[in-house]
Amino acid sequence: MRATVMRGGELTFGTVPDPEPGPGEVLVKTLACGICGSDLHVLEQAARRMAAGESDGPLGLDLGRDVVMGHEFCAEVVDFGEATQRHLKPGTRVVSMPFLVRGELPRAVGYSHDCPGGYGEAMVLMESLLLEVPNGLPTECAALTEPMAVGAHAVAMARLAAGDAAVVVGCGPVGLAVIAALRLHRVEPIVAADFSPLRRELALTMGAHAVVDPAERSVMDAYGELAEAKPAVLFECVGVPGMIDRIMTDAPHGARIIVAGVCMEPDRIQPFVGVSKELQLQFVVAYQPAEFASTLRAIAEGELDVAPLITGRVGFEGVAEAFEELSHPEAHAKILVEPGAG
Amino acid sequence: MRATVMRGGELTFGTVPDPEPGPGEVLVKTLACGICGSDLHVLEQAARRMAAGESDGPLGLDLGRDVVMGHEFCAEVVDFGEATQRHLKPGTRVVSMPFLVRGELPRAVGYSHDCPGGYGEAMVLMESLLLEVPNGLPTECAALTEPMAVGAHAVAMARLAAGDAAVVVGCGPVGLAVIAALRLHRVEPIVAADFSPLRRELALTMGAHAVVDPAERSVMDAYGELAEAKPAVLFECVGVPGMIDRIMTDAPHGARIIVAGVCMEPDRIQPFVGVSKELQLQFVVAYQPAEFASTLRAIAEGELDVAPLITGRVGFEGVAEAFEELSHPEAHAKILVEPGAG
Repeated sequence: MRATVMRGGELTFGTVPDPEPGPGEVLVKTLACGICGSDLHVLEQAARRMAAGESDGPLGLDLGRDVVMGHEFCAEVVDFGEATQRHLKPGTRVVSMPFLVRGELPRAVGYSHDCPGGYGEAMVLMESLLLEVPNGLPTECAALTEPMAVGAHAVAMARLAAGDAAVVVGCGPVGLAVIAALRLHRVEPIVAADFSPLRRELALTMGAHAVVDPAERSVMDAYGELAEAKPAVLFECVGVPGMIDRIMTDAPHGARIIVAGVCMEPDRIQPFVGVSKELQLQFVVAYQPAEFASTLRAIAEGELDVAPLITGRVGFEGVAEAFEELSHPEAHAKILVEPGAG
Repeated sequence: MRATVMRGGELTFGTVPDPEPGPGEVLVKTLACGICGSDLHVLEQAARRMAAGESDGPLGLDLGRDVVMGHEFCAEVVDFGEATQRHLKPGTRVVSMPFLVRGELPRAVGYSHDCPGGYGEAMVLMESLLLEVPNGLPTECAALTEPMAVGAHAVAMARLAAGDAAVVVGCGPVGLAVIAALRLHRVEPIVAADFSPLRRELALTMGAHAVVDPAERSVMDAYGELAEAKPAVLFECVGVPGMIDRIMTDAPHGARIIVAGVCMEPDRIQPFVGVSKELQLQFVVAYQPAEFASTLRAIAEGELDVAPLITGRVGFEGVAEAFEELSHPEAHAKILVEPGAG
């Protein structure tokens, strides 16, 4: 099949073997797949390790083998493996959490050598995880279920009390998903910070009550003006070294900090700052199955309007270039890969 | 008055001006005062900064001015300042949280230039914070109220659920206080780790169900054998760089880590470890007034036997040497400074 492949620390447009559905698995055709910031991190790390002559890639990957990334997808049922129920007819549009269990082993679709993701024409998914896309919901919106579920989970893990407010640091896809989930929970105010004017605009669109350019003023100052002494839960949604320390330093006494940004490098903190303010850091990742399903429902019922987040579309040939563009946050939020586009 | 003074980054036995009680304050005579690991940290940092030619000390102290440390004390009421109630007669033995509020400003007794601590013959304390030592409770046990309250607070902040177990890393005074508080909460099992045989022995005395020498085996392995899949709350009670990272790396998925060790230097963590296991770090420090009072009550009623923790006694002249000895954890848990001893 045609696919964008991570090979030797680079993205290449080419062909790879078609995947074949095993027991309990379904073969699907990719309709659309979002590019995730984690994919950029993984490619960057793979390139760095290749350059250093290493063979072990990030996330346990083997740098000598191909990987087809892409885990934010909407797809169409094509065929079934053995031991399947076949309730969904071929042609049905589906989304799924990007995981398979083979034998006893969990595999991440898009981050495994034998489970290609949505940057290829076909995938295999677990039948038991498939969720049918409701009639009338555009494919491109359904493809945003996965990144929006990340926000739903981060907010669930924050265990918000009635009256809690929120500060969201970073308005990339994770931050925007968190803002949308906070708004669904009727949290007020939601104050968000990002250097990019486009992302600040999107933050307002997704439900932030106020946005701040951290180059101009501190988000905690802006928050203080709006909410006075009301306690805020702080969401770290950037995921680069130094951010946790920065938020710990700016946080008020007793603050809860939800770390939703995925920083893959070692980082420096000042424990004494945490101790003297009795801060709580709650690291979060991914989502529970119920959060994934309820996110799809919220999108389908119009409670969560994700269309504004889609700022670009490319075919497989354009993925490498799209990765480049996404490293400049001024230009984009979410770019979708569509086999028919480009 | 006679006192052990931190002066120019060193501990010196000498004299300093007698403190005078202001409005709402009481003059007390020091009976006994424990040496806290934080005092060792502060002296070490002060010496390092002096050597580097700096004038700003740790905790906002001025390296050019004297400090009389010591915040784990039992004392005797001597005289009263203005605007005091005077319910406690002179001669009454008291303990107190080591804080004063002067004007609007909170001051830490033992870490302020104008609020000498228990390494001197006299202190001034806030009348409203004084707790009378119950009749019959030895002075030296009452002096352990402060460090034991630290454990009570750390365990309260852990918000333990019924059935939770605990792993305590580090069995210095903080770890031992945490173990004692866990035992009071009937937590089981409590598995504790320390390199020092003496401290492991004290951990068992204070209520640990099993102890581990980390040089021989991982505390998480030992815990796993004892408790199988039961969830454990992990207590970091060491407070040196690298410990948080180590515990995050060893922790199981979803673990709660209470950071009670006071690490005053920058530290390195791997956020990706926290994210991928959804860890929670709760930093804690000190105690609430109710925790301080209930700790005194538990010691007085024999629920908390603190006598085994006292491994040495010195007079003011011996404090510098005691600081030296405490840097070798094999020899001691708590050394008390007693004006009459040495």
